[in-house]
Amino acid sequence: MARIVQKFGGTSVANTDRIKAVALRVKKAVDAGDQVAVVLSAMSGETNKLVEYVTTMSKLYDAREYDAVVATGEQVTVGLLALALQDLGVPARSWLGWQIPIRTDGVHGRARIESVETEEMQKRLEKGEVCVVAGFQGIGPDNRITTLGRGGSDTSAVALAAALGADRCDIYTDVDGVYTTDPRITPKARKIDKITYEEMLEMASVGAKVLQTRSVELAMKQKVRVQVLSSYSDEPGTLVVDEDEIVEKELVSGVAYSRDEAKITLVAVPDRPGIAAAIFGPLADNGINVDMIVQNISQDAQATDLTFTLPIADLDRATSTLQAQQENLGYRELRADKNVAKISVIGVGMRSHAGVALRMFQALAEKGINIQVISTSEIKISILIAEEYTELAVRALHTAYGLDAD
Amino acid sequence: MARIVQKFGGTSVANTDRIKAVALRVKKAVDAGDQVAVVLSAMSGETNKLVEYVTTMSKLYDAREYDAVVATGEQVTVGLLALALQDLGVPARSWLGWQIPIRTDGVHGRARIESVETEEMQKRLEKGEVCVVAGFQGIGPDNRITTLGRGGSDTSAVALAAALGADRCDIYTDVDGVYTTDPRITPKARKIDKITYEEMLEMASVGAKVLQTRSVELAMKQKVRVQVLSSYSDEPGTLVVDEDEIVEKELVSGVAYSRDEAKITLVAVPDRPGIAAAIFGPLADNGINVDMIVQNISQDAQATDLTFTLPIADLDRATSTLQAQQENLGYRELRADKNVAKISVIGVGMRSHAGVALRMFQALAEKGINIQVISTSEIKISILIAEEYTELAVRALHTAYGLDAD
Repeated sequence: MARIVQKFGGTSVANTDRIKAVALRVKKAVDAGDQVAVVLSAMSGETNKLVEYVTTMSKLYDAREYDAVVATGEQVTVGLLALALQDLGVPARSWLGWQIPIRTDGVHGRARIESVETEEMQKRLEKGEVCVVAGFQGIGPDNRITTLGRGGSDTSAVALAAALGADRCDIYTDVDGVYTTDPRITPKARKIDKITYEEMLEMASVGAKVLQTRSVELAMKQKVRVQVLSSYSDEPGTLVVDEDEIVEKELVSGVAYSRDEAKITLVAVPDRPGIAAAIFGPLADNGINVDMIVQNISQDAQATDLTFTLPIADLDRATSTLQAQQENLGYRELRADKNVAKISVIGVGMRSHAGVALRMFQALAEKGINIQVISTSEIKISILIAEEYTELAVRALHTAYGLDAD
Repeated sequence: MARIVQKFGGTSVANTDRIKAVALRVKKAVDAGDQVAVVLSAMSGETNKLVEYVTTMSKLYDAREYDAVVATGEQVTVGLLALALQDLGVPARSWLGWQIPIRTDGVHGRARIESVETEEMQKRLEKGEVCVVAGFQGIGPDNRITTLGRGGSDTSAVALAAALGADRCDIYTDVDGVYTTDPRITPKARKIDKITYEEMLEMASVGAKVLQTRSVELAMKQKVRVQVLSSYSDEPGTLVVDEDEIVEKELVSGVAYSRDEAKITLVAVPDRPGIAAAIFGPLADNGINVDMIVQNISQDAQATDLTFTLPIADLDRATSTLQAQQENLGYRELRADKNVAKISVIGVGMRSHAGVALRMFQALAEKGINIQVISTSEIKISILIAEEYTELAVRALHTAYGLDAD
C-alpha cells in the first residue's frame, strides 16, 4: 500500500473516452490498496483555444483575467474524472486550486506555488476517496485564480506529492519514459530505468522536454520520486530520483540535441576590460538569453573574436540590437549563423571520471565533424556543430558512450 | 447618473466579436456617467456541451461535479469581457460566484441565492470600475460551486441589482421586449412599454419565456425595476415594474398561448369525498404538475366527469399512473387529448373591471371556437381549445381587447 500522486496530461484527457480510460487506471491503483490523488491538465487543445480567446480580446492582456479564463480547462476535466470514478464505484471528488487551497505568489500567468493545504485531503485519502486536483492553477494573495505557466500541471503534481508526503509522483504522458536519446534518430535508443534529478534537468535544458523544468527542480528540492510513464501502456517508465538511489552510475546517461540554436560571432572586438558587459548588457535588457560563450584570440593582437549562441527565435532581435551599437562596441563585423545544432552528453558519472570529453572529441573527429564551440558544466558537455551533422553526431556519441541497445 | 446592472445572455456573448460588441455597449453607459455591473451567461451552446460531457460520464451524476463543470462557461465569458473593456480603456474586472461571494443554499444544480456581498464591488463601482459578474453561479455552504438552474443568469442579475441597490436591471436578449402577443402570429402585435411583475409572471407561466420565472418573482419581491431589451438595437425595451408605476392600466396587457398542453378526462368518476385527492395524489407523487381542473356534472347522478390539463411531456406517465389505479378510483373511462391549446389573456386591469371574460367568450363565439375548459385567476383568464384554432383565437382576442397596433 502506497500513497501515489498520478498526473495525466492533455492527450490523456483529450475527450470523454480518454477520461474514462484514466478512471479505469486510477481504479486499478485504488483496488490494489493505494491512496491516490490525481492531477489533471485540460483537454488537449483546450488551453490553446482559451489563450486565443484572450489574445483576440486584448493584445496586452491583464494576466489576472487570462488566468481566470484559461484555468477553466482543468476545472472541466477534474469534474468529469470525479464523475467517471464515481460511476465505477470509486469515491472521488474534484478540487480546484482555490478550494484546497494551493496558495501561490501574485505573479499571474506564471505564479509559483507557496503552500498546499492538505489536511482535508489527507483525511479523505485515508478513507479511500480519490482526490482529483486541477493542475496548473492556484490562488494568489489577491484571492484571484493564478496559473503556473505552460506545463505547470507537472509542477502542481510534484508540489502536491511533496505536501502529501506521497511515495511517488507518476507523470503519465504520451511517451513511455526518458530515452538515452531521441528514438527517431536512432533505433538503438534505450529507455532509461532510473535517472537523477540533475541529469533530468540538463536533458530538459537541451530539448528533451518530457517534464517541465520547474517540476524537476521542485522534485529535487523536496526529494519527490517522480516516474515518467505512458498512459497507453502498463510498462514501468523512467524513475527520476536522487543520486543516492542509483547504485551503478553510468558515465553518460543520455545524448541530447537542439536545433533551436543560432550562433553570432563578433569579429575583431577591441580587447578591453568591460567589453563583455557592454555586449551582453543590451541583450539581457531585451530579454535575450545567451547560452554558450567563447572568446578566441584574434589574428589582431589588440582585438578578439567573440562567439555565442542564442535561441533562433531571438536572432533577428539580437542582430539589430548589436548592429545599432557597432560604433560603440567597435567590432569589425557581425556574422550570424542559423545552421547550427547543439549536441550534449549528460551524466553524473562524469564528475568522477576523466576522459569523458576526450572520448566525445575523438568520436566526432572520426566522423569528420568539426566542433565550433564547446561548453561544459559539472555533468554536461555541449558542443556546437553544423546542423547537417546532427543525426550523425548523435548516433556516433550514443555508440561511443556504450548506450546502444543490444 | 444611475447605477445599472446589465445582463447579457448566451447569444449576446456567442463569440469574441459579440463580446466586443457588448463591451462597446457597456462603455457607452460608462461614458454617460452610469455605474455599471454586468452579468453574463456562457457562450450559447457552451452550457449544452458541458452538460453533455457530464451526462456522458455518468447518468446519475453527482450534482456538485456537474456544477463545477458547467460553471466554467460563465468564467470564460466574464474574463473575456473584462479584457475587452480594458482594451477600450474602461477599468473592469471579472468576479466569480465564490469571489464575491454569492452565497446560495446547498441544492446543487438548482441552488437559490441567499446573499450577495457587495461591499468591495460598491467601492469599485463608485470609482468607475465595471464589475463583470459570472451569472448562474454561486458558492454553497460546502465551499463548492453551485449553479442556479437553466436561465439562472437572469436571477443572478436581479439579485445583484437588489444587493447593489441598482436603479435598473437591464436584461439584454435577442428579442426587443415583451409583446402583446407573439408577433409570428399577428403582425399587429405591439411591444409593451411597461408591464407589471404579476403580468410578467403570468405571461411566463403560459409560454412567453422572455425571463426566467424565478427572476421575476425575485424582482417583484425586491422591487427591482427590470428592463427587457435587445442587444442588437438601441431601442428602449419593456420595463417590468411595480403596479404603482403604471398610471394607465390596460384592461388586458397581452394574449399568450401554449401548445404544450394535453387534456385528460376521467368519465364517470364516483362522486364521493376524497376522490380528487385520490386522483391527483399519485400524479403529484410522480412529479406531474396538473394545471386547469374542471369538474362537470355527469349524466349519471352518482358520478361526475373530471377534466384537467398537464404538460404534453407528462401525458404518457399520467395515463399509465391513472390506468393502474382504475379499479381503485372507479372511473369508467379515461380520455386523453393532445390536440389542445391554452389561450390566456392577462392584465391587472381586470381586477377592477367586470365583463372581461364575457368579451373573451363573445370574441371566440363569433369565430365559432368551442371552449373546452375555463380557468381564471385574479389577473388571467385561460381557456382550452382545439389546437387548430390557436392562431385564429389569438388574433381574435388581440383585436377584441384593443391591443392591435394602428
